[in-house]
Amino acid sequence: MPSDETKFLLRENQIPTAWFNVVPSMPAPPSPPLHPGTRQPIGPDDLAPLFPMALIAQEVTTDEWVDIPGPVLDAYRLYRPTPLYRARRLERHLGTPARIYYKYEGVSPAGSHKPNTAVPQAYENARAGVKRLTTETGAGQWGSALALACSLFDLDCVVYMVGASYDQKPYRRSMMETWGATVHRSPSDTTEAGRTHVEHQSGSLGIAISEAVEVAAGDSETNYALGSVLNHVCMHQTVIGQEAMRQMEMAGEEPDIVIGCVGGGSNFAGLSFPFVRRRLRGESEARFLAAEPAACPTLTRGVYRYDFGDTSGTTPLLPMYTLGHDFVPPPVHAGGLRYHGDSPLLCGLVRAGLIDAVAYRQNETFEAAVRFARTEGILPAPEPAHAIRAVIAEAESARESGEERVILFGLCGHGHFDMSAYDAYLSGTLEDIEFSEAEMEAALERLPEAPALA
Amino acid sequence: MPSDETKFLLRENQIPTAWFNVVPSMPAPPSPPLHPGTRQPIGPDDLAPLFPMALIAQEVTTDEWVDIPGPVLDAYRLYRPTPLYRARRLERHLGTPARIYYKYEGVSPAGSHKPNTAVPQAYENARAGVKRLTTETGAGQWGSALALACSLFDLDCVVYMVGASYDQKPYRRSMMETWGATVHRSPSDTTEAGRTHVEHQSGSLGIAISEAVEVAAGDSETNYALGSVLNHVCMHQTVIGQEAMRQMEMAGEEPDIVIGCVGGGSNFAGLSFPFVRRRLRGESEARFLAAEPAACPTLTRGVYRYDFGDTSGTTPLLPMYTLGHDFVPPPVHAGGLRYHGDSPLLCGLVRAGLIDAVAYRQNETFEAAVRFARTEGILPAPEPAHAIRAVIAEAESARESGEERVILFGLCGHGHFDMSAYDAYLSGTLEDIEFSEAEMEAALERLPEAPALA
Repeated sequence: MPSDETKFLLRENQIPTAWFNVVPSMPAPPSPPLHPGTRQPIGPDDLAPLFPMALIAQEVTTDEWVDIPGPVLDAYRLYRPTPLYRARRLERHLGTPARIYYKYEGVSPAGSHKPNTAVPQAYENARAGVKRLTTETGAGQWGSALALACSLFDLDCVVYMVGASYDQKPYRRSMMETWGATVHRSPSDTTEAGRTHVEHQSGSLGIAISEAVEVAAGDSETNYALGSVLNHVCMHQTVIGQEAMRQMEMAGEEPDIVIGCVGGGSNFAGLSFPFVRRRLRGESEARFLAAEPAACPTLTRGVYRYDFGDTSGTTPLLPMYTLGHDFVPPPVHAGGLRYHGDSPLLCGLVRAGLIDAVAYRQNETFEAAVRFARTEGILPAPEPAHAIRAVIAEAESARESGEERVILFGLCGHGHFDMSAYDAYLSGTLEDIEFSEAEMEAALERLPEAPALA
Repeated sequence: MPSDETKFLLRENQIPTAWFNVVPSMPAPPSPPLHPGTRQPIGPDDLAPLFPMALIAQEVTTDEWVDIPGPVLDAYRLYRPTPLYRARRLERHLGTPARIYYKYEGVSPAGSHKPNTAVPQAYENARAGVKRLTTETGAGQWGSALALACSLFDLDCVVYMVGASYDQKPYRRSMMETWGATVHRSPSDTTEAGRTHVEHQSGSLGIAISEAVEVAAGDSETNYALGSVLNHVCMHQTVIGQEAMRQMEMAGEEPDIVIGCVGGGSNFAGLSFPFVRRRLRGESEARFLAAEPAACPTLTRGVYRYDFGDTSGTTPLLPMYTLGHDFVPPPVHAGGLRYHGDSPLLCGLVRAGLIDAVAYRQNETFEAAVRFARTEGILPAPEPAHAIRAVIAEAESARESGEERVILFGLCGHGHFDMSAYDAYLSGTLEDIEFSEAEMEAALERLPEAPALA
C-alpha cells in the first residue's frame, strides 16, 4: 500500500554507517586491473604513489560492508540523509499508472552526489598525513566536490580544469575558489604535461588528468583523487542506494525498475548496487537501466575489453565497455557523461545481463528535463536528465500497458551551473551530435594488446 | 539539554497548516496605507485592479491564523519542510560557547524563501480566474519564484527584469524561461512606462514595477504580484518561523536571539514573527536583529514616515522607515536588499523597540560568507551573508563574555547565481560603497506630504 506522502525524509541517525561493496555479490569476480607496462595484475604498491593505503585497501577489499569512519559521517551530516520524492505532479502530467520516485542528491553543497566520495577521500588522505590533493575536472562537478571536501579536512586542493570549461564556466571556478581551492586552466604551464600540450588551448580531460597525476606523483605530500570509475568510489556512493531502500520502505514500495545516468558509473552504482544485492539474493525482481548520451554511448555501443582509463594511456588497464581510450566525445552539455569507458564493476554487471542500457540524444534529453522542471520544480543537471528521459519512456509504456509499475531513479544533481545549456535548448540551437561509427572503429583499432575478457 | 544531532528534519505532515498574522499581537495597530491621491486610508476596492480578493482579504485581516489551502500545501510539499541545521563546524571555527542554528530555505527549487509566497499568490490568482501574472525582478530571485509558482498552477508569467541584471545574469533569465515565463528586459517597448524611460537603458526596479503594474492594470485577465513588503507576503513567509520553532524544540533549545537579513522584510518577518508572538506573550526573552547593507541602511539610518512604495510615487503611501522613495541605492551585489523602505509590519516592530537593526558593508559581509562556506559547506546568497556577519559578531561577543548564547538565523537562499560577486570579493575588486548622507537628505526633502506617524 503506497504512502500518501510526497517526500520521504530520514533522520540523521539513519545515515548508513557502512558502505556496500558489490564485489562479493557478483556472479563472477571482476577481472583484475593490469599494469600498463607488464600487463600483469597490479598490486597495492603500484597505486601507493597516488593514493593512501586506506583507500587502496577499500579498492581491493572483498568484504561486503566497510565501516564509514566517524569524521566522514560527521561531514555527511552537512547534507545527508538526502530526500526521496514521489513525482506526483510528473505522474499526473504523464497520465501514467506508474508511480515514480526519485532520490535527490542535489542538496549537497556542491550540488551533486560527488561529495559522497570526495569526503572520504579527503579524510583518508588527511589521516595519512597528505597535505594536498590534485585532480582534474571537466564540467566542474567533481572539482567542486573535492574543493568542498578539502576545505572540511584542511587540505590544499589543486584542480586542473579543462580549458574550454574554465572559459565557459567561470562560476564553477569561483565556487571552487570560494572553498579555498587553486584552479589552473589546463593545459597550464605548471606541469610538463601541460607545457607539452600548450598548443591544445581548449584542453581535454586527458591532458588535465596527466597534469594532476604528474603533480601528485612528483611530491610525497601530494596525492591524486579520482571522482568515478574506481571500485572504492562506487562503494562510497552506495550511501545513496541504502538510504533510498529505507525510504522506499517508508513509501511502502519496492521498485520494479531502478534508473540512473552513467558517465564513469559511480552515480548509477551508488543508487543501484544495494538493490542489485537484493536481486541477486532472490529478494527482488527489479530491473536496472543505465541511461547514457547518444554522443558517448559506452555501454550501448562500446566493446567489452581491457583498455586504459585515460586518454594518454598511462593508467592501469581496466576491464570495461569502451569506445577506445583515445575516443574524444563531442562537447555535449552533459560533461559528466563524457567518458570513453565505465566502472569495471558496473560493466561486469552489464556483461552479466543484470543491467540494461539505453542512449539518448541531447534535445530529447532536455525536453524531458524541462517537463520535469515545470512539474516537479527542480531544475535537473543535464546528466540526470538522461535518466528522466528513460523514466518518461517507462512511464509511458506503463500507461500503454495499464501497468502499475514502480520506478525509482537517481536525480544526482541540479542544473544551476548548466543554464547556458538550457538556454541553447530553449532557443533551438542545441545540436543532436551524432556518434561516429567510423571514428570509433579507428579508436578501437588502437586498443592496447591485452588478455581477452570472458 | 541540547540535542547531539546536527540536522533537524520534520516530516511532511509537520508542514504548518496555517499562516501566522502578527497584526493582532502588535503593541499598537499599524497605521493604514493611504491613497496616493486622497491621502485617505485605502480600501479593498483600491487594490482590486491588481490583486484577487482572497489576497486583499489576507492583506487586511486581523485574524491571528489563516488556513493554508490544500493545493498550496501540495505545492509546499515539493520542498517543505526545510531543514534546520546546527552550525557545529562554524562554532568550532569561531571557538565560541554560543550554539548557532540556521533555517535553510535554499532547498526550494528557486533557491530561496520566495516560493513560500509565490505559490499562494499564484494559487489565489488561478482560483480567481486570472490567466496571467506580471511582476518585476532585480537580481532574479523573486522572478524565478513566481515563474516556478505559475508553472505549477498553469498561469502565464511575464517578468520585467531590470536591464542591468538581465545583461549580467543571463542564467537567472534562462531559469525563468525554463519554468515557462516570458522575460522582458526593462525598460522594454511593450509598455508606455518602458517606452518613456527608453533612455535609461540599464533600467531600475522602479521602472520595472511601473511596467508590470501597467500591464496588469490594463488587462482584466492579468494581475500583478509583489514579492515582499506587503502584509500578506510577510504572513505567507511565517511557515519558516513556525517550522523553525518546532525544530528548535527538537534541538532542545530556545533562541536567545533571532537574526535575519532585511530587504523588503518578508524573509525576516517569516522567520521572526512566530518568535515575536512568543516574546509578546511573555513566553520568551528572545532578542531580534535585522541585518541590512550599509549601502542601503533603511532601518538604521532611515526616517519613520509615510512614503511611496515605488520610485515613481504611484503606489499607496506606506508607514515605514524610508530613505526616500526616489533614493536609488548603489548596485550592491545583494540585489534583494536594495529597497528604500521596508515592510510596515516589520517597521512597526522596530519602532516599538522589539527588533534591533545593524548594517554591514560588502567586504565584511562576503568575508563572513566565505568563512561560512568553508566550514558549513553551503554557499550563501549575498543577502543572508549579512545575517551571517551579524551571527559571527554575536558568537564572538559570546566567546568574550563566556556566555552560552543560542543563536538562530535565517539562511534564506544559496548563492549559485551570485558567483560573480564571490569572484569580485576573492579577487579584491569588491567595493565598500558608502551611503551618502547628502543624497539622502535631498531624497527626504522630496517625501510626500502625509500625516505624521506615532
